[in-house]
Amino acid sequence: MNSEEILQHRHKLLGRNFPLFYHQPLHLVRGKGVWLWDAEGKRYLDAYNNVPVVGHCHPYVVEAMTKQAGTLNTHTRYLHENIVEYSERLLNTFDDSLSMAMLTCTGSEANELALRMARHCTGGDGIIVTDFAYHGNTTAIAEISTAFMPATGKTKRVGIIPSPDSYRPLRGLTGEALADAYADEVKKVIDQFHTLGIKPAALIICPEFAIEGLLDVPGNFIEQAVSHVREAGGLYIADEVQGGFGRTGTMWSHQRAQVVPDIVTMGKPMGNGYPLAGVAARGELATEFGQHAMYFNTFGGNPVSCAVGKAVLDVFEKEELLQNANETGPYLANGLELLKARYDIIGDVRHRGLFFGVELVTDRIRKTPATKEADRVVNLMREQGVLIGKIGPHDCVLKIRPPLPFKTDHADLLLSVLDEALTRL
Amino acid sequence: MNSEEILQHRHKLLGRNFPLFYHQPLHLVRGKGVWLWDAEGKRYLDAYNNVPVVGHCHPYVVEAMTKQAGTLNTHTRYLHENIVEYSERLLNTFDDSLSMAMLTCTGSEANELALRMARHCTGGDGIIVTDFAYHGNTTAIAEISTAFMPATGKTKRVGIIPSPDSYRPLRGLTGEALADAYADEVKKVIDQFHTLGIKPAALIICPEFAIEGLLDVPGNFIEQAVSHVREAGGLYIADEVQGGFGRTGTMWSHQRAQVVPDIVTMGKPMGNGYPLAGVAARGELATEFGQHAMYFNTFGGNPVSCAVGKAVLDVFEKEELLQNANETGPYLANGLELLKARYDIIGDVRHRGLFFGVELVTDRIRKTPATKEADRVVNLMREQGVLIGKIGPHDCVLKIRPPLPFKTDHADLLLSVLDEALTRL
Repeated sequence: MNSEEILQHRHKLLGRNFPLFYHQPLHLVRGKGVWLWDAEGKRYLDAYNNVPVVGHCHPYVVEAMTKQAGTLNTHTRYLHENIVEYSERLLNTFDDSLSMAMLTCTGSEANELALRMARHCTGGDGIIVTDFAYHGNTTAIAEISTAFMPATGKTKRVGIIPSPDSYRPLRGLTGEALADAYADEVKKVIDQFHTLGIKPAALIICPEFAIEGLLDVPGNFIEQAVSHVREAGGLYIADEVQGGFGRTGTMWSHQRAQVVPDIVTMGKPMGNGYPLAGVAARGELATEFGQHAMYFNTFGGNPVSCAVGKAVLDVFEKEELLQNANETGPYLANGLELLKARYDIIGDVRHRGLFFGVELVTDRIRKTPATKEADRVVNLMREQGVLIGKIGPHDCVLKIRPPLPFKTDHADLLLSVLDEALTRL
Repeated sequence: MNSEEILQHRHKLLGRNFPLFYHQPLHLVRGKGVWLWDAEGKRYLDAYNNVPVVGHCHPYVVEAMTKQAGTLNTHTRYLHENIVEYSERLLNTFDDSLSMAMLTCTGSEANELALRMARHCTGGDGIIVTDFAYHGNTTAIAEISTAFMPATGKTKRVGIIPSPDSYRPLRGLTGEALADAYADEVKKVIDQFHTLGIKPAALIICPEFAIEGLLDVPGNFIEQAVSHVREAGGLYIADEVQGGFGRTGTMWSHQRAQVVPDIVTMGKPMGNGYPLAGVAARGELATEFGQHAMYFNTFGGNPVSCAVGKAVLDVFEKEELLQNANETGPYLANGLELLKARYDIIGDVRHRGLFFGVELVTDRIRKTPATKEADRVVNLMREQGVLIGKIGPHDCVLKIRPPLPFKTDHADLLLSVLDEALTRL
């Protein structure tokens, strides 16, 4: 089937609104490491996909999956060592207080579980989110997702705070005053909940504010916000589905702040493409929820998914990918800063580990979003064989988030192609 | 790690309430076809698991997965032929009106999507379910699940009807009068919704009423119920996650009734253990929902999951498993009827294809549930190397639901072990 035929079939069978990347959709047929190939044999540097965290089609991961799938694949109502071995290794990457795990298939399922657990254990109902958050695709998660989702689902039990942004700061504030001002917004939402008779259940954030544009978080905003929420009886849920698993130079992105979450949700990269996700929680919360709800997930934690999860951790450690994120990350960030010095359209370069947000503006003083230009850059780069995306409330932040075996020579290629695209604007 | 160590680790890492089968939990290490082996090398006939629909660890399916996982695994925002080829083959198994597909990872996600679609497209909110239904584990699905779930989540927008049961009939009715009486209960719930100002969105049922105990549905109950719901502006969602995919001797269990659902949800067997699930819907519903909500599922419909889905369909067809369900099914049913003639404790034998419900009662006239005895039989059979389960509101229905390559010699073994267990009661 050629690309045009696939497209026609998609429209008919899956709908015209079924999302696709790029003006000219990409028909991919092969992947290896940080590289992808299209149906015509053209090669692309993948600087977008975080799911294949240890590289596309990693042979060690494929072999572990094949071996277990050819041996046994049942479910967690029988005993199997894979789930306990994997859960133990996973939990060892967290603070000791996060002592229990629950495995699911998708990040949406993980966030669902976190919300159910938080609401049950606090007896509260109110959830606090930022004004451009995305946490998944179920009813309860769509209700708390403020980005991409239709506004019709919004309810009083969802309290919305402004995204804590140092580049476009609240009332032009800076430093401690800015962190305090954003934290005050959390207090305001809690007060509003109280006025409405709603008890707060949780603050849920991606600690990198990735959908919001990979924000530079003002000072101790997270610590203050969590403190306010806990005082009001709520929990702190860190959504690490996108930002976690070494992406940002620490194993989990919440670990950069001085506060340990009550519940952590994980997903995308855990299985390098195999549907594997989960929750790590304070033991007493998981225990209390477990006594209340008979939670069972048919595929979650099965022998194959855990074999894959273990293999991904093996490669992550053996190939020192966290270290690589901390080496290639600053190298690429430096290159992006050099481009910023040459191109006025680059308003801000933000990065943590191998996660980058490059905000484009048509006016550096007014910070006017360069939305069209961002779209042009992403598509020009795709034509030149480098895949990136864009994100943020103004859709003007270039999103660079490659598989973790991304090296300095890959960074050089990306920088030269970005340079050329910016020249052509 | 030995069984006891695994158990201790599970308690610590996953919680004491994390569900396990059997008084003496089973530590499985290998599977092949309809057979499973434990850590001590003991072999078990699997007469319980429907997920490995074409048999445990089928080499053709494992190979297809391995090949695609070693070639490319991305997501649906790039073009790939697997998703259109698989969706087309899948949709070809349905009535033409069910013309569009949406792929997810789990049955819960499929039911979530169906509810969101139904509520959006009807503008209604009320969902009608039976009094012992289970549709999944998310917030919105827990709300409509009446079995296993804590009652605390129940709300007015969930209308509950009695399960349409010919064995324990409403007011002792029979024949057409019974079908009418159960259908009247649907009308009553709709009237109740109207009184409360709630517009009905959908009736969601497993057309086999599997959780309810694999009921023999009275006459034209389904047709009448759907007719009432549609008159009130609601939709018919058939949950085929458990009962579908050839299990009951037709490709989909709703196809035995003379009414086509508006939305069908599928899951468990589709990927033979790989997390693959989805929704088939009337084209206009999927289109309208697609225009409203940007639904994206990171792993759903990816090249590997669709390669696995295609391979499962290949084996299903090549090994003529539907035909086998229609041959072994009646053979085993006949054997169960012969046991019923010898053991008074068997109150009722129900079957469709390779799905069986054997209801145990201590008194055939009063139909007193033999709950303890059912538990004893399941555990005695496990000791003798045959795996079955139990289900139903009184937990007294033996649930027999083997992988589809289950042959008459397997049936003979099951019957002899069941016979022995019944003798020992």
